Amino acid sequence: MERKFNFSAGPGVLPLEVLEEAQSEMLCYKDAGASVMEISHRSAQYTAIAESARSLFRELLGISSDWSILFLQGGASLQFYQAPLNFLTGQSTADYLLTGAWADGAYQQALTLGDARVAASSEDQNFSYIPERSSWKLSPGASYLHVTSNNTIYGTQLQSDPTVDVPMVCDASSDFLSRPIEMEKYGMMYAGAQKNIGPAGATVVLVRPDFLEKIPSGLPALLDYRTHASKLYHTPPVYAVYIIEKVLRWIKAKGGLSTMHAFNNKKAGLVYSKIDGSDFYRGVARTDSRSNMNITFRLPTEELEGQFIKAAAGEGLMSLKGHRSAGGVRASVYNACPIEAVEALVQFMNHFESKQG
Amino acid sequence: MERKFNFSAGPGVLPLEVLEEAQSEMLCYKDAGASVMEISHRSAQYTAIAESARSLFRELLGISSDWSILFLQGGASLQFYQAPLNFLTGQSTADYLLTGAWADGAYQQALTLGDARVAASSEDQNFSYIPERSSWKLSPGASYLHVTSNNTIYGTQLQSDPTVDVPMVCDASSDFLSRPIEMEKYGMMYAGAQKNIGPAGATVVLVRPDFLEKIPSGLPALLDYRTHASKLYHTPPVYAVYIIEKVLRWIKAKGGLSTMHAFNNKKAGLVYSKIDGSDFYRGVARTDSRSNMNITFRLPTEELEGQFIKAAAGEGLMSLKGHRSAGGVRASVYNACPIEAVEALVQFMNHFESKQG
Repeated sequence: MERKFNFSAGPGVLPLEVLEEAQSEMLCYKDAGASVMEISHRSAQYTAIAESARSLFRELLGISSDWSILFLQGGASLQFYQAPLNFLTGQSTADYLLTGAWADGAYQQALTLGDARVAASSEDQNFSYIPERSSWKLSPGASYLHVTSNNTIYGTQLQSDPTVDVPMVCDASSDFLSRPIEMEKYGMMYAGAQKNIGPAGATVVLVRPDFLEKIPSGLPALLDYRTHASKLYHTPPVYAVYIIEKVLRWIKAKGGLSTMHAFNNKKAGLVYSKIDGSDFYRGVARTDSRSNMNITFRLPTEELEGQFIKAAAGEGLMSLKGHRSAGGVRASVYNACPIEAVEALVQFMNHFESKQG
Repeated sequence: MERKFNFSAGPGVLPLEVLEEAQSEMLCYKDAGASVMEISHRSAQYTAIAESARSLFRELLGISSDWSILFLQGGASLQFYQAPLNFLTGQSTADYLLTGAWADGAYQQALTLGDARVAASSEDQNFSYIPERSSWKLSPGASYLHVTSNNTIYGTQLQSDPTVDVPMVCDASSDFLSRPIEMEKYGMMYAGAQKNIGPAGATVVLVRPDFLEKIPSGLPALLDYRTHASKLYHTPPVYAVYIIEKVLRWIKAKGGLSTMHAFNNKKAGLVYSKIDGSDFYRGVARTDSRSNMNITFRLPTEELEGQFIKAAAGEGLMSLKGHRSAGGVRASVYNACPIEAVEALVQFMNHFESKQG
């Protein structure tokens, strides 16, 4: 069997070099005498892996050593609940930027815990754009503003790190480490690993030290970020962290986040150029809100979209179907998506269009 | 590098055949054109893996298709909180059998949520035994009795499934699928995968249909078992489930749970016979409460224990150190631990003892 060009929205493509290294170490990791899946989370080997991963996060993101870097579980979905449980406490308020279904999911969980408010929403246009910064209604003294940096389903993305008066809490699941981030603007950032940085089953949570101090006492132990910040509380998702560490080394070897950003812009640019130069393909996201991770577009009819996706799969271009709630075509071009995949996609788009005569 | 004899308490040893199969599929899983780590959790391939795993659980455990079989995250530790959140509600009570630090962890979380009571405890003897059934103080009409089927740290184990008047909720993390289970006695059973059935990062939760119905509304979405029972709510730990499915197939091919039980008793019996026949080694657990998963024993001095563990490691017998809270030696001999490993351990015990003159 051969590897195909993988445009899956997540779990998504990983660097081939990472998989090859993991393959070679599957039965025996270095001097461990066992697979990484079989060693204690308190072993010297796993401790070194986790420390290396944390060190690489600090280096790539330019954050100081007093940030907490946590390898949790439960995906971004658990963070939707856990973040407000820790930070939307007492009489405080929190603002939410509603830029998609996942952002709304986070907002709905916060509503069950406290005074969560909508700063702005693009639901009126089916989340096809990011509301202009000038339109955001921010609550003075809010505990945080929650943003979703990239909206996987609709193909929109914050084009830069917003400037607001309060710390931001960011769901960065689908564009984490795809570009440099002004981390000082954030109190907390979380990302399910399965898009850009590893396999499903680990959630990376970064918490700024002064933000961590705001957590009240009395929370359930496992849902209190301080539990994990202070020690290795329970068994982490060892193998997922092991893969993440390899992906971080791969990103660093490629040149870090600026290089990734340029690479991602180049790849997405190829597809957007094709869309913009065509009357056949129509982009879904507003031009000023486009994602360079998830490229969403439509064809003249749903029937043609079905044919397009099926014919593409036949050519080894897999997982191009749009999210079931949005329809259309979606090409997810994460960090590890090679340029050859994108070139093949554009070539296929040309070919498919020309066939329609 | 060579694989060693692995006595790690968890994450623990996996069947070599499982790892070899995973290795061969690492770059490309069947016709997926990608690693299992890179495919959508809604893909045909992952759906088939999860369905096969569920079907094997049903077959091995003899449970009907209306049991919920959930692949969650957060380890047993999250279940310590989640189980009472779902089932210790309103004015109800729940009883807890305190047979170790993890059992106590579960009890402590339940205490924060409702009227949790201690049915019996072996803390008076440092959890070296399972309290006799006749000593258990059970609350009439309790929502459940929580038991820990095997106590990893101390090396004790319930010798059979207890009979009580209420459904049991069981933390089976460290002996799950090591023996046949009378599932009809349980309302719910949960297990972190990383001991007997897979890698860290997945928690298998089994809920009986009539027990599931008792969950009240208004719980946080991700922490409500019904959320996961009714649909694939969010991205599961795909790769961990993939490994679990292979382990289940391995167990079935070996002959199922009765065969596993006989195999585990045989392995543990070799070590216990050595302990019982020696004045040099001393078992920690009371004879009637011994675990066939985690065998704990002491040597005459802590200095000798340190020498024993170090010398054993030099002979390729790894991870024999007891839990940091208990000291001594612990040999974890899970399902996948080969008989050769146990024979090598007994041989080493003989050798080490004879050297002391």
